[in-house]
Amino acid sequence: MYLNAMDHPRDVRRAIRSRRHTGHTAGVAPGYVQGNVCILPKAYAQDFLAFCRANPKPCPLLAMSEPGDPRLPALGEDLDIRTDVPAYRIFTHGKEVRDVADLLELWRDDLVTFILGCSFSFEEALMQAGLRLRYVEQGRNVPMYRTSVDTVPAGRFRGKLVVSMRPFKPWDAIRAIEITSRYPRVHGAPVHLGFPEMIGIEDLEQPWAGDPTEVRADELPLFWACGITPQSVMLDARPSLCITHRPGHMLVTDLKNASLAEA
Amino acid sequence: MYLNAMDHPRDVRRAIRSRRHTGHTAGVAPGYVQGNVCILPKAYAQDFLAFCRANPKPCPLLAMSEPGDPRLPALGEDLDIRTDVPAYRIFTHGKEVRDVADLLELWRDDLVTFILGCSFSFEEALMQAGLRLRYVEQGRNVPMYRTSVDTVPAGRFRGKLVVSMRPFKPWDAIRAIEITSRYPRVHGAPVHLGFPEMIGIEDLEQPWAGDPTEVRADELPLFWACGITPQSVMLDARPSLCITHRPGHMLVTDLKNASLAEA
Repeated sequence: MYLNAMDHPRDVRRAIRSRRHTGHTAGVAPGYVQGNVCILPKAYAQDFLAFCRANPKPCPLLAMSEPGDPRLPALGEDLDIRTDVPAYRIFTHGKEVRDVADLLELWRDDLVTFILGCSFSFEEALMQAGLRLRYVEQGRNVPMYRTSVDTVPAGRFRGKLVVSMRPFKPWDAIRAIEITSRYPRVHGAPVHLGFPEMIGIEDLEQPWAGDPTEVRADELPLFWACGITPQSVMLDARPSLCITHRPGHMLVTDLKNASLAEA
Repeated sequence: MYLNAMDHPRDVRRAIRSRRHTGHTAGVAPGYVQGNVCILPKAYAQDFLAFCRANPKPCPLLAMSEPGDPRLPALGEDLDIRTDVPAYRIFTHGKEVRDVADLLELWRDDLVTFILGCSFSFEEALMQAGLRLRYVEQGRNVPMYRTSVDTVPAGRFRGKLVVSMRPFKPWDAIRAIEITSRYPRVHGAPVHLGFPEMIGIEDLEQPWAGDPTEVRADELPLFWACGITPQSVMLDARPSLCITHRPGHMLVTDLKNASLAEA
């Protein structure tokens, strides 16, 4: 780990590109937006774009590339999606195949990149407001659950919403809802609170991904739409090829978190 | 009841002034702000102003008059606080004495009027968003509770926060928090949700004022700071004289509810 937490996103991407940084990006370049990555062949791009537009809470689209173009100038002038993510995950026909360090050999002229907002942005706002995130303090991953709630289908993409859970005392829960409602481009307000069974979560101790987090007797569990919903949907839609980031290993962009807050 | 629900606030006040309307003001002049009334001798005014500023959630100050001046031009050019409220309640030394129809005989040169925002404004926004208010649909009063939560003391004014309660399913609860957080001048977001006992409410069936409202198994009770908090505080502070509106019989102003919403 050669990164300084206060590095500019451009320096972070340079370190990743040169393989000086290969780990996760939590806490890296604070203040800057990190993104979920989803790369698909052009044949699937219009359907996936429609899916994102129909499901803005789990899939808040920050940027979309031209087919075959590895650049995303709106997110960083020098940005190259083939080299600037610490680790990539390859799915073929809905099966997770392997992780790779870059896409230089896999890149094709028909690949379209989608970058979706990530909860790191609103978590920064929560912590700035004095709220405490237990999973962060415990050095763990946020717990994620596949719910019984259907996403809005678009073309070949459909499936169950995935949510992340953070517990808060009632007054902090209200503050967390107020704050995250100002960030619609990074999942926005929670989709549920209080009764996990109402959204098909039988056991909070058994997350679909991430680590379980204790919910104390004077706390409410709050559930936000999660940026891994597309990965869950890909398992069902089975596109011939889909490339994502490895969870936690995000694309670091030049956008400021503050720029995503509504007035 | 000679009022048309769509009447302009000026016409409503005229009807009240001429005693053609003496009832409550729920549903009257939709779209316009109604206010809680609190009138005190000048000797108490600075303390009460400080109390409002220290407790903006229960006491969101919309206007304050000059001593002895019955007008509130910011709320209505013709407005006369001595005649334009359907019913007034008189407290002397912290005791409720009687209700009166106008203040023409009681008026004094040292009286200062405070007008505080009222939840009717945010309830309109909730209903416009498609949320249902059970107590409205049942034609009852909202249940109000005296909590164990202290207000911030200012001068001789101190006491427990009073809250109103509305039950919602989880997704509607989130919407209600989002919406009301945009109305800080009419109580803003809730102060609590989920666990009544955490704020000293032992039995939801036994409100301090208003009527009980059922909370169903798939609902959460949401608690908003309530504009009758000052009336509760007056019982303890015991000013020589305090004049309020009769609960539900509000001052109808020319301000638009929409003007109170933040961007």
